[in-house]
Parts: sequence; structure tokens; C-alpha cells
Amino acid sequence: MMKFVEVFAPATVANVGCGFDVFGFALDEPGDHVRITPSADSEVIISRIEGDEGRLPRNAEANTAGVVVLEYLRKIHSQQGISIELYKNMPLGSGMGSSAASAVAALVAINRLFDDILTKEELLPIALLAEKSACGTAHADNVAPALFGGFTLIRSYDPLDVIQIPVPDGLYCCLLHPDIEIRTEYARKILPVNVDLKTAVAQWGNTAGLIAGLFRSDLDLLRRAMEDHIVEPVRAPLIPYFYEVKHTALEAGAIGCSISGSGPTIFALCTNQNDAEIIADRMKYVYDAHKRNCQIYISRLNPDGPKILSEDIL
Amino acid sequence: MMKFVEVFAPATVANVGCGFDVFGFALDEPGDHVRITPSADSEVIISRIEGDEGRLPRNAEANTAGVVVLEYLRKIHSQQGISIELYKNMPLGSGMGSSAASAVAALVAINRLFDDILTKEELLPIALLAEKSACGTAHADNVAPALFGGFTLIRSYDPLDVIQIPVPDGLYCCLLHPDIEIRTEYARKILPVNVDLKTAVAQWGNTAGLIAGLFRSDLDLLRRAMEDHIVEPVRAPLIPYFYEVKHTALEAGAIGCSISGSGPTIFALCTNQNDAEIIADRMKYVYDAHKRNCQIYISRLNPDGPKILSEDIL
Repeated sequence: MMKFVEVFAPATVANVGCGFDVFGFALDEPGDHVRITPSADSEVIISRIEGDEGRLPRNAEANTAGVVVLEYLRKIHSQQGISIELYKNMPLGSGMGSSAASAVAALVAINRLFDDILTKEELLPIALLAEKSACGTAHADNVAPALFGGFTLIRSYDPLDVIQIPVPDGLYCCLLHPDIEIRTEYARKILPVNVDLKTAVAQWGNTAGLIAGLFRSDLDLLRRAMEDHIVEPVRAPLIPYFYEVKHTALEAGAIGCSISGSGPTIFALCTNQNDAEIIADRMKYVYDAHKRNCQIYISRLNPDGPKILSEDIL
Repeated sequence: MMKFVEVFAPATVANVGCGFDVFGFALDEPGDHVRITPSADSEVIISRIEGDEGRLPRNAEANTAGVVVLEYLRKIHSQQGISIELYKNMPLGSGMGSSAASAVAALVAINRLFDDILTKEELLPIALLAEKSACGTAHADNVAPALFGGFTLIRSYDPLDVIQIPVPDGLYCCLLHPDIEIRTEYARKILPVNVDLKTAVAQWGNTAGLIAGLFRSDLDLLRRAMEDHIVEPVRAPLIPYFYEVKHTALEAGAIGCSISGSGPTIFALCTNQNDAEIIADRMKYVYDAHKRNCQIYISRLNPDGPKILSEDIL
């Protein structure tokens, strides 16, 4: 058995405009690191967390990285003791898939420790379990892209059916993270219970159109199809200057701009790195002008998902 | 100017399961024929209709083929007199896009008469106008595939945005038309005004999945994604033995089976001609066993749309 495994798993943008609960894509950065070390006893412990300002639970049963390791060991009937170190590189409650990144990094690490005996398809339900413990609902639109990389469609939750969708070359994403926090549970509670059929039709025209745009590398179709008629209007008021940022990003040439996951992070999809840098500057300028703090991230879309950063084989 | 033009336009299957008001595909048969002959005066008349049992309006302003010709002439500022002959080869009120086929055949014919001065994109809004006059709503999911052929996505109605989607080779469709009629207005009136968000999410997961299945030629994905959670359950009770026919078709290997347009025709998508023939037989057997009449159609999916059948150039 290895002495340790350290794995990176990426931040993710869920919903992607029109695809509430069904679309998500992975980024190259930021992302969480998890280091897993086998121990002599049979306990699973969180030995260290950095980057969370002391806010995440240290108890393995309550921590998303701990939950997946415990469940993984149960599944393969192992009594192995494990020490987990978690290095957070993104804000909590940001809508960037923070809990999914930790869960997926821990899962890929523990699986690597056991010679990759489970497939990614088999890991996914375990990651979903952790998402449920962290957010109250087992939504897969962060864990699936964090695990598989690229752009994923969750066609169905019951049974779980994840489809990989090709991504046009060169796409970049910029993220503006306002200095506020929105709890996923709250962001879900304010959603409408019902939507009128006409709006629903417009939305599924767009989800279908967005998939066609990705297969075709038709950026103009992506631009037209990304619009969300249902969730964005309800959540935008929670995010300071959302529409001003969005308008600025689109004016500066973003393919689309909406709320990343349940927010407050705002994402803009961009055709290339140069555009992304200009667009990120302009988005940040809106916040600067209003004297609001924010963090900016610029990243290529990540086609591969998690990465083994280091491992030490005995 | 030509002495006459005769054009075929195909029957179409709208909705295609999950894609209410946004998906449609064209068939090779059945289809309507329209013959257009310029006349010396400036009147537009319907000189002959066959195959409608005397039920369609003979008045050009009230007949879908007449409406598009009048609108076309208005649009190009022509006073040309036109005589229209309409040969219906499919039942009215059947959910097979009967009015769309007549409108598209007439439009392509009159445009041919004027040397194709309008593009198909320019013809589409004229066909939509006729659909509105025939059915009360300007839905495009029959006229778009009838005009463009293949499988079309109506991403948006306002502005109108029609996307052509590739179709896997060799697909066939069988149709069972029960001997009853459902008026499109009524079939729309019984639809729910609201849908719950969870069901809407399942539906847009499916519309996105169906597009991915078509691009990938992944028939198993098509099978999983075609399911309609919103419209089929409401309209199925209007169609005798719908679920028995559907179950039979799926058991016999159909990719999917649902209501064609607003019904009562039931369509089954099949992987090849041989399967389609077997599946059509089994579907018909259900009706035979219940002593109900029906017509059966078996057709390849039509990639090209309308066809000029004959023309006589002076």
C-alpha cells in the first residue's frame, strides 16, 4: 500500500445558465487538494484542514471529505485507518462547488490508495452522498463535472445518468466571487415550486440548444441558448450588482454570463484567454466602482477532472 | 414564368416525446402535394382539393395553402393570380402535421414559381402564419421540419430560432393513426398551465439528452431521453389503448414511442426498416384485438424536406 496520495479536484460551475440541476463544467483552477495517508489503526480522521478559516467540521462523519472516505471503505469492506489532510483553495458557500471539490479529491485519492478498484461511475454515487450531507440535496451538477471533467449533463437523477458533452477548444471562464456567502439550502428554498408551461418550454428549448451549440462548437448558438428564464431571475437579487456585472461581461464579449451554481459567484464564459482577462477586469471594475470586495478567477475549462498530484508507493 | 409547379411536403412528428413545442422531424411519407398554376387575373383561388372528404375550406383566405400563397404574394408585392390544387394524402386532425404539410408544399411551390427568391428561413414565418390560422397557435414544430427536413429544434419562438440536428442513419418511424380526431386547440386546452420545477428539470434533462443522443448516434441514450413527463400523461387518455400500444412498441424494440404532435397518432421511432415493419404490425395488432380501426404508416426519416415533383417552364 502507498504511503500517501495527494489529489487535486477542480472548482465547477453548475447550472450554466439555462441548465438548472442538469449542467455543469469543470475548471483548471481553483481547486482543492486532499492528501490521504493510511494509518495503523482503523480510524478515519481529519488530521488537518487549511484554507477554511476554521469553519469546516473536523469530525470525519460531518466533513464532506470524511463522509466519502468512510462510505468508500464501507463499500469495499475495508477496516483501513485513514488520515485526511484537506487544503481548501476556494471560498466556502461560493457556488463554485467547494464541497464537491473536496469530496471528489478525497474519493479519487482513497480509490487510488486501493489501486483504483472502483470506476468513476461507481465513485459518483458516493460523492453524491457527501453532497447531500453538505447541502441537503443530492444534486450532481458539481460532483459530476468535478469527477469526470469537461462539461456534463445529468440527464436523470433516478436512475443517475451522466452524459459527457464535448467542449469547443479554447473556452475560458472567469469568475467573480463577491465577498458574501449564500447557503445552498437558502438559494434552493427561494426557488419557485411551479413554473408556467410556456417558460418551461423556453427553458428546455435552451437546454437542447446549448447542447447542440457545444457539439457544433457554435459559440453564437451558445450565446443565444445560455439564457435562464427561471432560476437566475429569482437568485439575482441576492447578488450585489448582478445585472450590472452581467451586462458588462456581455458587452465586453462574453459568450454568456450567469450565476455559478447557487451563487453568489458570477461566471462568464469566454471564447479565449485574452478575452477572459479583459472581461474579468471589466467585471471587477463594476465591484471596485461600488467599493465592494470580490475575488476574480480566470481558468481554462478543464477537460480531465481530478489530477493525482503526488503519491509515494512503498 | 412557369406553366405550373407541383411540390410534395412531408408529414411530420412534432414534440418527439420530451420536446413539447420544440422538437419535430420529417417523414418520407405520407405527404401532401400542391400544384400551383399562374392565372391571367389577379385572384388566388383554390381550384381543387382531393383527399379531404370535402372538409377543408375552399376559400383561399381560410385554407392554409391559400393563406401562405396570399401572404407570399403580399410579401413580394405581386398581383399575380394563382390557382391552387391541393392533394391531401394524410388524415386531418391526426397529429401528423397535415396543415403544415399543405402550407409548406404551397409555399415551396409559389416560391419556385418566383425563381426561389425567398430563402427557407424567410418562408418559415409565412408558414407559421398559416399554422396560426389553422390551429390557433403559431407553433413551429411541424412547419420547421416539413420545410427544412430532418430533425429540427425550435430553440426559441421570439425571436424564431430553428436549429437543424443531425439524425443517425437508417432511422425509421411507424405511425398508428386511430380512427378518431383530436383538435389541436382542445389538445392544448387540457395542458397544465404550470408544471412543478422538479418535473420541469427532468424534462429539460431529457431534451438536452435527446439532442446529445442524436449528435452521438447513441440510440440507447435516445431511448432513455425520449420520455415525456408533462404532456403525454395528460393527452394519453384521449387516445384509445395508448399505453398498450406504447408498451407493445417498446417491447418489440422501438427506440421510443409517444404521441405524434397533439395526437391521436402514435409514433414509434425504430432503428431500421425491418424493425419498423415488425413493430408496426404489433401496434396494429393491439387495435385489431380491440376491434378498433387504424391506419399504419411506415417511413424513413426524411432528411431533405419538400420535393419539387414536376414543373413546366415556358
